[in-house]
Amino acid sequence: MTYDVFMPVHCVYGHNAVTEKSALLSALGSKCLIVTGKSGAKKSGALADAIEALNKENIGYAVYDGIGENPLISSCWEAGRKAAETGAEFILGIGGGSAQDASKAIAFYATNPAFAPADIYGKDKGCIPPLPVALIGTTAGTGSEVTAVSVLTNDETGIKKSVKGPDCYARIAYCDPKYTYSLPYKATVSTALDAFAHAYEGFFTQKCEGVVRLFAEKCIPDLYACLKQISKDKSVDPSLRDSLYYGSIYAGLVINTCGTAFPHPLGYVLTENFGIPHGMACAAFAGHFLDRCRIFSPEKFSEFIRMTDDSDMVKEVISDLVNLEGVSISPEDARIYSARWEKAVPKNFISSPGSLTREEAESFLVI
Amino acid sequence: MTYDVFMPVHCVYGHNAVTEKSALLSALGSKCLIVTGKSGAKKSGALADAIEALNKENIGYAVYDGIGENPLISSCWEAGRKAAETGAEFILGIGGGSAQDASKAIAFYATNPAFAPADIYGKDKGCIPPLPVALIGTTAGTGSEVTAVSVLTNDETGIKKSVKGPDCYARIAYCDPKYTYSLPYKATVSTALDAFAHAYEGFFTQKCEGVVRLFAEKCIPDLYACLKQISKDKSVDPSLRDSLYYGSIYAGLVINTCGTAFPHPLGYVLTENFGIPHGMACAAFAGHFLDRCRIFSPEKFSEFIRMTDDSDMVKEVISDLVNLEGVSISPEDARIYSARWEKAVPKNFISSPGSLTREEAESFLVI
Repeated sequence: MTYDVFMPVHCVYGHNAVTEKSALLSALGSKCLIVTGKSGAKKSGALADAIEALNKENIGYAVYDGIGENPLISSCWEAGRKAAETGAEFILGIGGGSAQDASKAIAFYATNPAFAPADIYGKDKGCIPPLPVALIGTTAGTGSEVTAVSVLTNDETGIKKSVKGPDCYARIAYCDPKYTYSLPYKATVSTALDAFAHAYEGFFTQKCEGVVRLFAEKCIPDLYACLKQISKDKSVDPSLRDSLYYGSIYAGLVINTCGTAFPHPLGYVLTENFGIPHGMACAAFAGHFLDRCRIFSPEKFSEFIRMTDDSDMVKEVISDLVNLEGVSISPEDARIYSARWEKAVPKNFISSPGSLTREEAESFLVI
Repeated sequence: MTYDVFMPVHCVYGHNAVTEKSALLSALGSKCLIVTGKSGAKKSGALADAIEALNKENIGYAVYDGIGENPLISSCWEAGRKAAETGAEFILGIGGGSAQDASKAIAFYATNPAFAPADIYGKDKGCIPPLPVALIGTTAGTGSEVTAVSVLTNDETGIKKSVKGPDCYARIAYCDPKYTYSLPYKATVSTALDAFAHAYEGFFTQKCEGVVRLFAEKCIPDLYACLKQISKDKSVDPSLRDSLYYGSIYAGLVINTCGTAFPHPLGYVLTENFGIPHGMACAAFAGHFLDRCRIFSPEKFSEFIRMTDDSDMVKEVISDLVNLEGVSISPEDARIYSARWEKAVPKNFISSPGSLTREEAESFLVI
């Protein structure tokens, strides 16, 4: 079996990466659009550092701060127009998964005004190359810094769907864990659960070989140790922050090659219908996932257990951190939610150990 | 401290990578120049697989098989002219370090007829982007598949010097260990020593952090175990071949970020003046290097020892495999050879633990 590894993002790791390596931005252009959510970019200190870096390099900028959690296609389209109108030559996305994923879409919309917003899913049919993107992460979860994926939410249906492709890679990712230091407890837990989900979901796919397996074997024990500690303390020891952040980047490199497994699309249902934060929503299905891994991928499961804890303990640590308050899904509701997979199940179902049918997914959705 | 990681080569790993993933070549063009040495590409089976892949994708090709060991600038220039004349849209390099390094230079010469051959070292001053390059490795040593480096030999002076830069990256690297299976004992040993030198020289630089350190920690024990086995058996157990090859790729990823240390430029002297194969020539200085690492980088040295053996045993395994027959360098000769570093010592000296002066280098050259 052959396996591909393609990791073209120029990553700068470490404290003060943005200001120390600001010169890299010059290669992307002399004017940019900064893309952020409402507050994270400011609170984390990342926006201030970014502006310092841009000023140092004499790069002009405009700001679009209208990206919400689970970014809407309409917001990205609007920001794309703003990028074009202000003559931005690149996009500088600052934030968690939402701002980063949005930045990739905005870079596309900026150069493709002839495409209707929803046509981003057909971008491979003759789009103009998107603007280059630089990213600054502020959460230890998404891994979007290093992936060729952008998950967007359809304004009308409310359904999350990912856009992919080599043109979704950032050119530069600044990976400085200090921007995660001010992240509140709940957001830290949810994003950390997301990172851990990326690590184990990717690990159990067949594509997790060689370099990528090395990444998985690095971040699974690191992220698990952090989550176990958080579960015990019910707070985030500052000493865990760097490990959580770097773990999230390794986990991003894992899913970039391996993709995620069934907990991700199932999690979307909890986010779309009950507002459960993404990481927590995916982690809600960890128990079902690990049970199937034990049955259908016993060798890898033994390795996973060696890297973490016994199976019950891992499930306990995760479920202790997952808060599904307000979620109630009857078998009838589950049938309605799972209708989206009636025509075809997503790749994530097929790449999960033992695969997953629509009916099985439906049964897992009953909460 | 911040550190950069940039690994943009699309790597396809595994047996039959070339024929299974031939479609990737289509994106590079419809005609190519195959670049090889005299025999390795044929004997290894790589050339036949490459031609099968090109035929499958309807890609035309011409062949240049005039690359010798330690490729001359003149050969690369000549092949560059051939690439241009035959309308090649990309270069497909097949071989060990020589054919691969040459391919990167040929890709430059093909698009830059206005540059004089030696001007490749000034290529960053306004050259036309080189042709894209795809590489197929046939030795477990160079790591050139994944690096942005090409080492060329000056026809007049006989001196080896490296060309570097983001435009020296291959677009695609096919990493199939089966092409190394037919490599003779001596070439296997020398290239394996080269790979191991990349691993330990890179490991002891300050840049060896994060992702890259993970790679070093993976390939150091793997490559050492192979070398120890080879030293014991005085032959290459076929079961070691895959591990040696993948180890050489990890080690390539290490030097791509970290660079090499002083054994490399010192090794050039033995290759240029006594025809000692590159890997063996660098390994000849491993003892001096490890002695200095123990003194100037004690913590990392302890980690290195944990991953391998006690220091004397590591040095013994290496020196047992190094054959310096015919090399005799008097203090006077050493002074002459070291004159090249009179104006300035190379970066590799400075990045070595404890750094290295010209005088120290001179003393190490006395053999």
